[in-house]
Amino acid sequence: MTTPRYQQLADDLSHCIRSGVLKPGDQVPSVRQLCALHDASPATVTHALHILEDRGLIEARPRQGFFVRTQSFAYPSQCALPGRPKAIELEGHRKLVMEFAQTCGNHFLGMSAIDDSLFPTKALKKLLVQQLHRNDNIVNDASYTGDIALREQIARRSLLLDCDFLPDEIVLTHGATEALDLCLRLLTKPGDIVAIAAPGPLRTLEMLEGQGLQALEIPSHPCDGLSVDALEFALRHHKVAALVVNANFPSPTGSLMPDKEKARLAELTGRHGVPVIEIDIFGELTHGPQRPKPVKAFDRHDNVLYCGDYRYVISPGFSVGYIAAGRHRLTLQACRKVHGEPVAALIQQTLASFMASGQYEPHLRRLRSQLASQMAAYRAAVFRYFPKGTRVACASGGMLLWLELPEGTDMTELQRRSHCEGYVFAPGALFSQGESFNNCLRINTGHPMTVELEQGVRVIGELAHAVQAEAAVLA
Amino acid sequence: MTTPRYQQLADDLSHCIRSGVLKPGDQVPSVRQLCALHDASPATVTHALHILEDRGLIEARPRQGFFVRTQSFAYPSQCALPGRPKAIELEGHRKLVMEFAQTCGNHFLGMSAIDDSLFPTKALKKLLVQQLHRNDNIVNDASYTGDIALREQIARRSLLLDCDFLPDEIVLTHGATEALDLCLRLLTKPGDIVAIAAPGPLRTLEMLEGQGLQALEIPSHPCDGLSVDALEFALRHHKVAALVVNANFPSPTGSLMPDKEKARLAELTGRHGVPVIEIDIFGELTHGPQRPKPVKAFDRHDNVLYCGDYRYVISPGFSVGYIAAGRHRLTLQACRKVHGEPVAALIQQTLASFMASGQYEPHLRRLRSQLASQMAAYRAAVFRYFPKGTRVACASGGMLLWLELPEGTDMTELQRRSHCEGYVFAPGALFSQGESFNNCLRINTGHPMTVELEQGVRVIGELAHAVQAEAAVLA
Repeated sequence: MTTPRYQQLADDLSHCIRSGVLKPGDQVPSVRQLCALHDASPATVTHALHILEDRGLIEARPRQGFFVRTQSFAYPSQCALPGRPKAIELEGHRKLVMEFAQTCGNHFLGMSAIDDSLFPTKALKKLLVQQLHRNDNIVNDASYTGDIALREQIARRSLLLDCDFLPDEIVLTHGATEALDLCLRLLTKPGDIVAIAAPGPLRTLEMLEGQGLQALEIPSHPCDGLSVDALEFALRHHKVAALVVNANFPSPTGSLMPDKEKARLAELTGRHGVPVIEIDIFGELTHGPQRPKPVKAFDRHDNVLYCGDYRYVISPGFSVGYIAAGRHRLTLQACRKVHGEPVAALIQQTLASFMASGQYEPHLRRLRSQLASQMAAYRAAVFRYFPKGTRVACASGGMLLWLELPEGTDMTELQRRSHCEGYVFAPGALFSQGESFNNCLRINTGHPMTVELEQGVRVIGELAHAVQAEAAVLA
Repeated sequence: MTTPRYQQLADDLSHCIRSGVLKPGDQVPSVRQLCALHDASPATVTHALHILEDRGLIEARPRQGFFVRTQSFAYPSQCALPGRPKAIELEGHRKLVMEFAQTCGNHFLGMSAIDDSLFPTKALKKLLVQQLHRNDNIVNDASYTGDIALREQIARRSLLLDCDFLPDEIVLTHGATEALDLCLRLLTKPGDIVAIAAPGPLRTLEMLEGQGLQALEIPSHPCDGLSVDALEFALRHHKVAALVVNANFPSPTGSLMPDKEKARLAELTGRHGVPVIEIDIFGELTHGPQRPKPVKAFDRHDNVLYCGDYRYVISPGFSVGYIAAGRHRLTLQACRKVHGEPVAALIQQTLASFMASGQYEPHLRRLRSQLASQMAAYRAAVFRYFPKGTRVACASGGMLLWLELPEGTDMTELQRRSHCEGYVFAPGALFSQGESFNNCLRINTGHPMTVELEQGVRVIGELAHAVQAEAAVLA
């Protein structure tokens, strides 16, 4: 599967914007100019421009054409070099995490989640009842490594990822969390150094802490994801036991690694013999027409352990994860028998029959377009209510919106006041051990925009104004 | 709830046998003598004698009365003192574990499991369909800390354990495995010393290894469980971060701690400020009339984190575990949001409605009596086919039968040959880091005895004869 022409063009133009060839406020060349420059059809060029618009990089001005957005992210300077590996045991960080976990429960803007109305409830219910009638022992059946029907469906769909998993190498788990846990157990021992993205998913940081591992934070761009240059530098200077990477729309930024970088990443880690644990739980939630490939698609060395999860794709009631374990399959299957709990066959077989039923693709199309329009609504609200100088990441998939407030914004104070008003967001400091993201925050856009949620964005935005104004007076 | 009279009498007589006051082969005083000695009714004495018989400590000889069994366990001498704490990283042990996990899959004698026919399949199925019809969003619902209906049922049943959990302090998990994982995460950090039983459950050892903890193995008697004397000695000499204990019928021995020892354990750990993680997954599977109390029932200091699991009680398809978290509830709830995966509401609510339906107690009665008769059938087969000098533990609950072959039996060879013949058991070396149990093995009795399974016990027994005979020739 090759990258389509419009995608290539969109990637090239993104690169021009991020590298500064096209600056904020600049007019983008016209469709006619681009057609001539790139030897492409008007349809291809228009498609590429819409992708850039979706990514938040450019905006249309009536009768004038496209302009580079002034509020998109610039490549932060601290992205140049990774820090030093650190054992994770920051008391302050832990406190922050616990506070967040205790408060975010019923707050739609806080925890990453997708609204129940976006899941195929009726179809799943019908299939559950069918399964109960069809199979006598299904309520007791449970397996450690996975029902064959489900493993076959996963293998079949892997062709769309440009991978070709075998049913035999799939190991089922309780969600991607357990998948990551097992892979780390397999590849590391306490004290080892594991490379991760910064900012990166909170769960990964927490899991490294739990297993007594050291985190080597590799800078990750809010739009392009993990910096492979920084990773290359890190691998030259440290003995890294494994890399954990989420290439497609990860928490907190929703970034997307370009295919070229994914290929480089696979080649680089293969050459250094550093195994990769790839978590691809949001890849299916692309807002664009094409589901992005995982790093695994570029893996020529059987060096990438690919982990998926149906929780955000099919339903939180079906939090079934899996590992495409390649040459590690026997060890991981045995490992799961010792460390894991069996997964109910009822859940697995219903999932498999949903995937086999022909209802999966239409569901995905609806889910993707709904998430895209929700993200747009929240992004618009942020532009409306947040202070000037707020940068907004350009996620083109998933449901997480990453904001960078002007340097020096007192996030602790903003968080405290927002919470008093009844609104919770995820502060940037959650997603790294360092302090680079203390002026950032993450908003969940998984729920359809309502008057009340818009009010929430407004309140947080206005409080950000207030906090900034007070800081300016003090300075 | 006080210990019933017959139970006290049974415990006293057990003590006489284990301490050597009554020796193997000795005749037990008659019912009439015991009535007079203990000022008890004939019914009480008979009941107590039947308990001892169930425990495998005494046997009836026609027209002669009861005699102390010659093949019951004596208190092993190495029980006197615990060893030193060790970081768990024995390559040999790991290899053994992986081999076992890879081979035990379809072997009924290997892995600890209960036959599907013993679970309330029809009732669960009916309730699942009801739940699906009753609640519109149930297929998507999933919670991190647990559905209130289920937490209320758990709280209600805790009265039967002589505990009184509040619904608010219950934290739901994916089985007891995750419960233990969370509790260890809460109470320890890598490098800490955790006291565990030896022999003890393989999962506990494995989990300590995964979290980089050191294991301090406390000798555990195959009948009376963890030696509180040895624990006391250990606590005087080491800084212990937590104790993990299974007081009721744990793997691999099926031992049962007497109430007196449970009370001492609770008092001792409370006094030393050493938190206890109690795993009570087999307690409901007593073969006797009275479900044994957990250590938690004697906890006056909110010092015991109690963990349960419905997997072995209701169905493997309902592998829902929980922690009664006491003062740690808020932290553990938050911890689970960060580290865990949501548990499907469909499973939780079906479990709750089964427990509320009045079908739970009758199911438990059937399950207990079936397990008791299965255990008796396997025990009889072992007596029939295994070499003289084989000792058989006296489990009075659960489905695990622990055998000690004569010193010096080459278990690796026995295992290899059994596997060649198509039979797998769990070798004793799995359950400790030390070598004290290299001549022991565990057999699962969770499946109803069949001609084929009896054949399995016979083959293993005959191979044990052969291996011994060869060793004798060489010696």
